[in-house]
Amino acid sequence: MEAEVLKGTKNYIPEEQVLREDVIEIIRKALQKYGFNPIETSVLQPYALLSSKYGGGEEILKECYRLKDMGDRELGLRYELTITLAAFLLENPGMKMPFRRYEIGKVFRDGPVKQARIREFTQFDFDIVGAKSGLADIEILAIYENVFRKLGLDVEIQLNNRKILFAIMEYAGIDNNSETQASIILTIDKLEKIGKGEVSEELIRKGLNEKQINKIFEVLDIKGSNEEIITKLSEMLTSENGKEGVEELKKLIELAKAYDLKNIILLPSLARGLGYYTGSIYEVFLKNKKVKSSLAAGGRFDKMISNFVGKDLPAVGGSFGLDAICSALEPKKKSNAQVYVIPIGLPEEKFLPIVKKLRETLNVDFDLSGRGISKNLDYANKNKIPYCIFVGKRELEENKLKLKDMDTGEEKTLSLEEIINLIKKSK
Amino acid sequence: MEAEVLKGTKNYIPEEQVLREDVIEIIRKALQKYGFNPIETSVLQPYALLSSKYGGGEEILKECYRLKDMGDRELGLRYELTITLAAFLLENPGMKMPFRRYEIGKVFRDGPVKQARIREFTQFDFDIVGAKSGLADIEILAIYENVFRKLGLDVEIQLNNRKILFAIMEYAGIDNNSETQASIILTIDKLEKIGKGEVSEELIRKGLNEKQINKIFEVLDIKGSNEEIITKLSEMLTSENGKEGVEELKKLIELAKAYDLKNIILLPSLARGLGYYTGSIYEVFLKNKKVKSSLAAGGRFDKMISNFVGKDLPAVGGSFGLDAICSALEPKKKSNAQVYVIPIGLPEEKFLPIVKKLRETLNVDFDLSGRGISKNLDYANKNKIPYCIFVGKRELEENKLKLKDMDTGEEKTLSLEEIINLIKKSK
Repeated sequence: MEAEVLKGTKNYIPEEQVLREDVIEIIRKALQKYGFNPIETSVLQPYALLSSKYGGGEEILKECYRLKDMGDRELGLRYELTITLAAFLLENPGMKMPFRRYEIGKVFRDGPVKQARIREFTQFDFDIVGAKSGLADIEILAIYENVFRKLGLDVEIQLNNRKILFAIMEYAGIDNNSETQASIILTIDKLEKIGKGEVSEELIRKGLNEKQINKIFEVLDIKGSNEEIITKLSEMLTSENGKEGVEELKKLIELAKAYDLKNIILLPSLARGLGYYTGSIYEVFLKNKKVKSSLAAGGRFDKMISNFVGKDLPAVGGSFGLDAICSALEPKKKSNAQVYVIPIGLPEEKFLPIVKKLRETLNVDFDLSGRGISKNLDYANKNKIPYCIFVGKRELEENKLKLKDMDTGEEKTLSLEEIINLIKKSK
Repeated sequence: MEAEVLKGTKNYIPEEQVLREDVIEIIRKALQKYGFNPIETSVLQPYALLSSKYGGGEEILKECYRLKDMGDRELGLRYELTITLAAFLLENPGMKMPFRRYEIGKVFRDGPVKQARIREFTQFDFDIVGAKSGLADIEILAIYENVFRKLGLDVEIQLNNRKILFAIMEYAGIDNNSETQASIILTIDKLEKIGKGEVSEELIRKGLNEKQINKIFEVLDIKGSNEEIITKLSEMLTSENGKEGVEELKKLIELAKAYDLKNIILLPSLARGLGYYTGSIYEVFLKNKKVKSSLAAGGRFDKMISNFVGKDLPAVGGSFGLDAICSALEPKKKSNAQVYVIPIGLPEEKFLPIVKKLRETLNVDFDLSGRGISKNLDYANKNKIPYCIFVGKRELEENKLKLKDMDTGEEKTLSLEEIINLIKKSK
């Protein structure tokens, strides 16, 4: 056999997966604090469901993996967890609203391999369905703040509202054609990344005149505190969309204050692509930009689930970018095992009880094959296990074991209890 | 839209998924104690890899979902995690042996819908690769014992060895044709389920004569302690297979004693289907038989990974049946939320700080929409949240909140600190 990993998919080695599991655990625990419960939906879906006109839209559907089962049914692999959430609510009409759920699972997108697209990845979504109030939006922002604080990552939570973007279009006198607007919004969204010059050029190429572009930048150039930005936006954006967008943002900024949330930055150019967002939108970035892509994102989507399920189910939520978060972190531990036991010329019945005792408190690996000491040390080293314990006949008789710190190379002779306490503290 | 869940797949509601996540957490923590690290492999695989002759075999390959991507590549969905483990080791030749890994992930089997086959399910596998010693086998049994004790389930761990089954064939003078033997072993495996009478009938239908069947039951009828069974087996099964099988079982029983493992039952009829097992095999059942299917199973497979990777990599491992385990348990909690806060006529800036304070310790949900009390209580009830807190203007002034126990209906007026302590203790 040849080693072959399908392009666009990835296997995670222990060192990476230990970190991923720890990150997932921190996020799960935070979501539980906020009263969220998990659900699990299936990967395999009827293609008719995935391609429903209330689904993820044409663009994403192009990348939907399709297959047939032995009964010739048309199936697809889910491309996101929001459509399966909508289907879940259709299947389970008895769920009480507001419904706070999270789901962690794989999604699949058949993107072009040549563009190095990721074709299978883990999505971590959380949403509150059935709540119109800005209190629900602020829960999402509070969760971001909480999770990234726990992860020790210094982030900026960018905030905007879809209605502000439409109001900017109106302010600049841009045609009320949704396709034109959508295309221009996509360009505006690049402002943080490519800068004012390139955005202007792209807008010219898209047919805007100088006056329109100046109007757009009148809004995007607003500087100041969130409150100052709100005040200026409310003066400039007086259309229906403008009024509503400003009102909603104002409410969120107030609530953020009541909840004592930090690091929320109002950014009128933020657009979050062409998704189904209808109100507030958010994107979380590392302040030091060590990782360029966003670590989390989300927003309000009042129509998508409503249309799918056929009743009014406004929703707001977010998702965490597991791989982006992991690449922003410096992992502290690279192995679950905290100690590796090396028996020296002892029969199993002598050292197994020691292993068992250690395992009451610690994560313990031990030599299974009676190898020599240097091979065992090499194993512990390569597997990044921080401590080794040597146990031979004399150690057993004296009730003292030899502990080696694999980082410093230092060796100490200690009792089992002393070893357990030392390693527990070193965590 | 119509609610449609693909037959053979299942969505898990919060009540179910809360339990599943807790079970996964208990198993993960146990595996970490035993020095295991996680890996993650991809669901999408080149079909050539899944259909390799060293893969899961013809039977399982028939049920492999196949698809093509936009580049017309032949792909399949993984049907188990062992083949992706083998592929992982081929991709990562630097992994140090013995390699202790676990993986939790979805696998897919395109079984006939009419037979109510599950077509998408979560597999929880753990294996030690690269260790020949019985010490590795005993680690698997020790993990079973540990996990089921932690889960509070009283189980019996059935143990046998593939070589014993072949030795029984030899003892009964059955043709050395592997297909005949395999078919007879499958019948013998049913002994616990369908009893001696039906097994005999099936063996007759499969062409065995009375003498042969009597010989088989001479072995299967052996009763006694594990040590007594071993002794009798060693007297009867004197072929090469018999000697090796008895020796390996004897070693495991000794090690189990050294490790002080309980509930291990030697069962010479245990076969574990037609898998790639080459040595010891195990299956874990609930003692009270409330759940008929096995809760966990595993065994030694020294050839499969070796053949796939092209070097000697003996392996032993097991997997947990997540759904079987969950149906054996009485879930204690049905929601992650421990308390639901109901503000009465208070502005957000007054009650949000209380919610925030509670969340430092507890999992908290709260009313997002300013509903009436009865609607809020109904919500907490349906969502199985054990406590509600009422907070109005007077409560705030007096620094006392009203706590309602949703099980008993009892109400108490307490300080925030008292409430936190009471709920923390009630967990």
